[in-house]
Amino acid sequence: CADTNTNIRLTLPVVCFVWQIAMIILFGVFIRYDEESDTHWVETKAHDNITSDIENDFYFRYPSFQDVHVMIFVGFGFLMTFLKRYSFGAVGFNFLIASFGLQWALLMQGWFHSLDPQTGKIFIGVESLINADFCVAGCLIAYGAVLGKVSPVQLLVMTLFGVTLFAVEEYIILNLLHARDAGGSMVIHTFGGYYGLTISWVLYRPNLHQSKRMQGSVYHSDIFAMIGTLFLWMFWPSFNSAITDHGDGQHRAVINTYLCLASTVLTTVAISSFSQKTGKLDMVHIQNSTLAGGVALGTAAEFMISPYGALIVGFLCGIISTMGYIFISPFLEKTLKIQDTCGIHNLHAMPGVIGGIVGAITAAAASESVYGKQGLINTFDFTGDFKDRTVLTQGGYQAAGMCVSIVFGVAGGAIVGSILKLPIWGDPADENCFDDEVYWEVREPATHHLLFTIQPLGGAIVFDLVSRDELQTTFEIYI
Amino acid sequence: CADTNTNIRLTLPVVCFVWQIAMIILFGVFIRYDEESDTHWVETKAHDNITSDIENDFYFRYPSFQDVHVMIFVGFGFLMTFLKRYSFGAVGFNFLIASFGLQWALLMQGWFHSLDPQTGKIFIGVESLINADFCVAGCLIAYGAVLGKVSPVQLLVMTLFGVTLFAVEEYIILNLLHARDAGGSMVIHTFGGYYGLTISWVLYRPNLHQSKRMQGSVYHSDIFAMIGTLFLWMFWPSFNSAITDHGDGQHRAVINTYLCLASTVLTTVAISSFSQKTGKLDMVHIQNSTLAGGVALGTAAEFMISPYGALIVGFLCGIISTMGYIFISPFLEKTLKIQDTCGIHNLHAMPGVIGGIVGAITAAAASESVYGKQGLINTFDFTGDFKDRTVLTQGGYQAAGMCVSIVFGVAGGAIVGSILKLPIWGDPADENCFDDEVYWEVREPATHHLLFTIQPLGGAIVFDLVSRDELQTTFEIYI
Amino acid sequence: CADTNTNIRLTLPVVCFVWQIAMIILFGVFIRYDEESDTHWVETKAHDNITSDIENDFYFRYPSFQDVHVMIFVGFGFLMTFLKRYSFGAVGFNFLIASFGLQWALLMQGWFHSLDPQTGKIFIGVESLINADFCVAGCLIAYGAVLGKVSPVQLLVMTLFGVTLFAVEEYIILNLLHARDAGGSMVIHTFGGYYGLTISWVLYRPNLHQSKRMQGSVYHSDIFAMIGTLFLWMFWPSFNSAITDHGDGQHRAVINTYLCLASTVLTTVAISSFSQKTGKLDMVHIQNSTLAGGVALGTAAEFMISPYGALIVGFLCGIISTMGYIFISPFLEKTLKIQDTCGIHNLHAMPGVIGGIVGAITAAAASESVYGKQGLINTFDFTGDFKDRTVLTQGGYQAAGMCVSIVFGVAGGAIVGSILKLPIWGDPADENCFDDEVYWEVREPATHHLLFTIQPLGGAIVFDLVSRDELQTTFEIYI
Repeated sequence: CADTNTNIRLTLPVVCFVWQIAMIILFGVFIRYDEESDTHWVETKAHDNITSDIENDFYFRYPSFQDVHVMIFVGFGFLMTFLKRYSFGAVGFNFLIASFGLQWALLMQGWFHSLDPQTGKIFIGVESLINADFCVAGCLIAYGAVLGKVSPVQLLVMTLFGVTLFAVEEYIILNLLHARDAGGSMVIHTFGGYYGLTISWVLYRPNLHQSKRMQGSVYHSDIFAMIGTLFLWMFWPSFNSAITDHGDGQHRAVINTYLCLASTVLTTVAISSFSQKTGKLDMVHIQNSTLAGGVALGTAAEFMISPYGALIVGFLCGIISTMGYIFISPFLEKTLKIQDTCGIHNLHAMPGVIGGIVGAITAAAASESVYGKQGLINTFDFTGDFKDRTVLTQGGYQAAGMCVSIVFGVAGGAIVGSILKLPIWGDPADENCFDDEVYWEVREPATHHLLFTIQPLGGAIVFDLVSRDELQTTFEIYI
Repeated sequence: CADTNTNIRLTLPVVCFVWQIAMIILFGVFIRYDEESDTHWVETKAHDNITSDIENDFYFRYPSFQDVHVMIFVGFGFLMTFLKRYSFGAVGFNFLIASFGLQWALLMQGWFHSLDPQTGKIFIGVESLINADFCVAGCLIAYGAVLGKVSPVQLLVMTLFGVTLFAVEEYIILNLLHARDAGGSMVIHTFGGYYGLTISWVLYRPNLHQSKRMQGSVYHSDIFAMIGTLFLWMFWPSFNSAITDHGDGQHRAVINTYLCLASTVLTTVAISSFSQKTGKLDMVHIQNSTLAGGVALGTAAEFMISPYGALIVGFLCGIISTMGYIFISPFLEKTLKIQDTCGIHNLHAMPGVIGGIVGAITAAAASESVYGKQGLINTFDFTGDFKDRTVLTQGGYQAAGMCVSIVFGVAGGAIVGSILKLPIWGDPADENCFDDEVYWEVREPATHHLLFTIQPLGGAIVFDLVSRDELQTTFEIYI
Repeated sequence: CADTNTNIRLTLPVVCFVWQIAMIILFGVFIRYDEESDTHWVETKAHDNITSDIENDFYFRYPSFQDVHVMIFVGFGFLMTFLKRYSFGAVGFNFLIASFGLQWALLMQGWFHSLDPQTGKIFIGVESLINADFCVAGCLIAYGAVLGKVSPVQLLVMTLFGVTLFAVEEYIILNLLHARDAGGSMVIHTFGGYYGLTISWVLYRPNLHQSKRMQGSVYHSDIFAMIGTLFLWMFWPSFNSAITDHGDGQHRAVINTYLCLASTVLTTVAISSFSQKTGKLDMVHIQNSTLAGGVALGTAAEFMISPYGALIVGFLCGIISTMGYIFISPFLEKTLKIQDTCGIHNLHAMPGVIGGIVGAITAAAASESVYGKQGLINTFDFTGDFKDRTVLTQGGYQAAGMCVSIVFGVAGGAIVGSILKLPIWGDPADENCFDDEVYWEVREPATHHLLFTIQPLGGAIVFDLVSRDELQTTFEIYI
């Protein structure tokens, strides 16, 4: 304990300053407005014979972008506030790493996806912002696995490498393999999930029980977490449709995700209730497993999976994710030594893999009779180099994409985990995990919960104390 | 007490599973994408000579839909978190029944409103999702009357029948009577209000005072409830405009609702302050009555009620709703034996009726000089079978519509209440009402606080005591 | 203490009623729907050869409007909930004055900006609603300086005059000087900041330390405040783009603000961490200074400031604003006798001035090579009377605009502060500041301060109690 140095007064400011200056320089060199956000748009419009400003991609995507933005900052941030005394860290560090990550993502994704060969510039617009938010989501998922056990400097390092890895695997999956993954079941959730789990495995803390008193939630922290849950749940249709095709593509992705998530809620409640002797519900399940359907429809949301197909995916995910919290998470911790604070295995990794499989199957099963000739081409973008690809081949590439995301998650996590294991990052001692006081000025001192029963005893009232903290006390109040 | 069985380990999972499976089967048989969310949209566009994807109804309605979605899950959910120890139930059961209800609503509304006679299918798009959310709102309103007194199984049953009744009364009011009710003053609020009140009347608990210690709010629960209030208040313009006519219809409904709600806030504050000896405000009024204006403009929002007309409606509703909390709710409970946990009579039933009346009057007073010839036809949809209807006749049908919603609410509530009275649903004993521990794993022990904060102050220690209860106690000592 | 009368049972209801009735009358006389929200839109469309309803300004601005609306009510409201026991006042009075202010703003801004000379009417549409929300923002900023120290009646008076002053300075800056200020660095933030600071200076309370126990936050109130912070932060791109030009103007303003805010977060964290011995972060900084970048880009957001330019502005603002909390706020309080509860000087006044300067410089540096000929004209609206204005002149007028906003803030604040100093408004005594119980029914009982002395006595610790509340008690803790 005493030999753990959590002083980050030097490292945190230096990392923030240097990286932000680097961003400014790199943005100065590379990033420019795209033609729809440049003042020359008036000329573009005239040139392309666009009659109305409403044809600007901004109006197709901005409402979805703002919903995604809320998911990133309020959704992910508040979902992690469930711990009784780590809410500052949850929402605050989420804020920090997302703010850094989205800048780095604009550069990394720009270099890989939209570097203009002639000018050497990256031209950004509203879709770039959405993609940057998506990229950040992968790192925020990973944060869930190590919540409360790492320093903000470690989180920034994790984000730097996470965004980098993301851009590469995304390039391989979407561009080279030409897999479809609009809502990122594979690219975001599978990658982010395994990235975080592997890092947590490398950073395994055998004595984490020493901070057991700080684990778990209190009543109000569970309600704060529901703010995160609901904003994620409500806006997930926007997430899965934000970058799909204009028109029917966005429309269909919304319907599918909306239905899938509704179905997930019912089976989550069913399993949660059934897992307790008296049928009581567990807030952990409601907060997390209800979202698994959105994850699992990330790949197939824009496909013609049909409304009942979406319901089936949600049905299964609610069951599997909730069972994950009940059976798999304890197994992972005990046997595989993976300490997964938020249970991202059940919310992101597993449902992400399911999503990849669902995507591969539904792609392989796509037919011209269902999609229409042009519809099939539009949905799977069978144009250019890929104009002769069949749906069966596409299904194979989808499956390959999923493998790529797992490999990148595990291998990347192993490397980054090793870097984070260096004793220079200011991470907390085992007994100080999950405690905001390590990195935050907390005006209220730590809370000790002391349980009493009160008995009238003569003229006095005796408080018999059963402390949570191995503390035996008798309290007497003479009033 | 001891003979009340709140074990729902069998019933809740079975209901969730069976109903969700039924949904999947029925969706498989009936529900399909509509032409704007189908991959054949590319052909539809060509056929209908639509030049841009932005003409897809998705772009007219999606921002409003997401606002409505937030109202349903965060708005209604958090509004009911005001009870000191029933916030899990408020936000969690709201989540559950809304998720089930919206699926059932898509089917019920589809059968009644949009079943294609040729194919026997229901074709859904973004407007269907909005209508499903609307339908669910009726049941969530009813939940407010029985909050804390029923089991989740009862809530699901209430939602099943509520959605069914809703679809029928909506069909009668909107299709047969051809009344206008875009924001649902009658169809949603009046119906939902009386449905819930009648159920609560049937389920009257003479010994509810036994759980008096759990009634009322604590400081933080009141702030959580304000999250619900504000999201309802802010997004109500979207609610009332979500399914109105493209263009000026949506535009006008937003302006009217925005103004009406602003006016309501001032008169709510005025009456709330005036009702206390020293002019102190009551959070119950601020949380609820400020919303009454939105309810009351549900029918007339799209009419040319004019900006000052909207202000007048809001002005009156703030007064009436707040007075309702002060005078009518106690009367309902004592004399009519209606226990209305959230005061939905003041927030939904009464303002809904006012909204119906306002709608009838403003419809009857509509004139070609104000609306324009085509404007009048568009606003009241005087086409097809109704092309010869006069505004006076329309006013009559509006009033008739309001009566239908009341009748359906009361009669439906009486029947469903009787079903819910059967002793098989696992509802809580009188002394355990309003207590999350009946249906939720609550990690923190019971909440009868004796709260001290200890601070060194000179040679002494200051205990800040907030005492509330007698026996079981949580001591929080900040050392 | 005893001679302070905080009874507002007469004044608050009277002000609310009379002012609301005045609004109704004035709206009846002046306010009408504009052509895009009137039922005659169908004729306007035909006349102007508009082919689709989506060309209605509603669809360009409504998503941004709703985001701005959330910022006003949830953003500003919850940002101020950080005080441990003034959250009702923060979110409730914010609700009240915004609801009044937006009505008055529609009138004041209408008279100054859009009174139709022929009809004598003000025609409103969605852009009017956004501008009304903007106008209100100025007063909510000012509320931050006096939070906890004034009565709701004083706040309403402050809002009445604030909106009036706002409309005049806005008219001078935007219309007469023809300065650009889409996101209101000058018009909203500089004005609102200095208005509030000057009022607070006039209302200086030398004995405010008597309510020291109520100042500062508790754990959960800091998390509530983060709800406000994040909704402001996330939706600030909508704020700065809500009334910019259709198409590239809105698109660019979003990109710039998004980037600027991300940069601000990193430098805020850096300075906050560096300012503490062990590098711990301070919630006050994270809640407030992270937003300074949005303020500072209010003027230049629609300019071609380029992505790295936006990052630089954010970089500097995070530093300056956080330093403001550490160094300048204590100085203002001690030396200049300005008590600034929320630190609006650091979040609005200073960054607003920076924004004005950035706007002036970037306007003066604008060139046809960067903007394009038509782009330059569009961006700075060099049309009509201003068609011959050069960018250098424009820069000068931008700077002049900033001075106008400061002058209006300071002079207006001095006058309004003097009015608010009259002993008729029911403001709280020094020892009751920051306490909701003055103006709200708080159901949780009052805090009893029990004074103890501790004596070791054998194996026990004896707490000898000296109660403030005529309660004699001995406390013994055996540990």
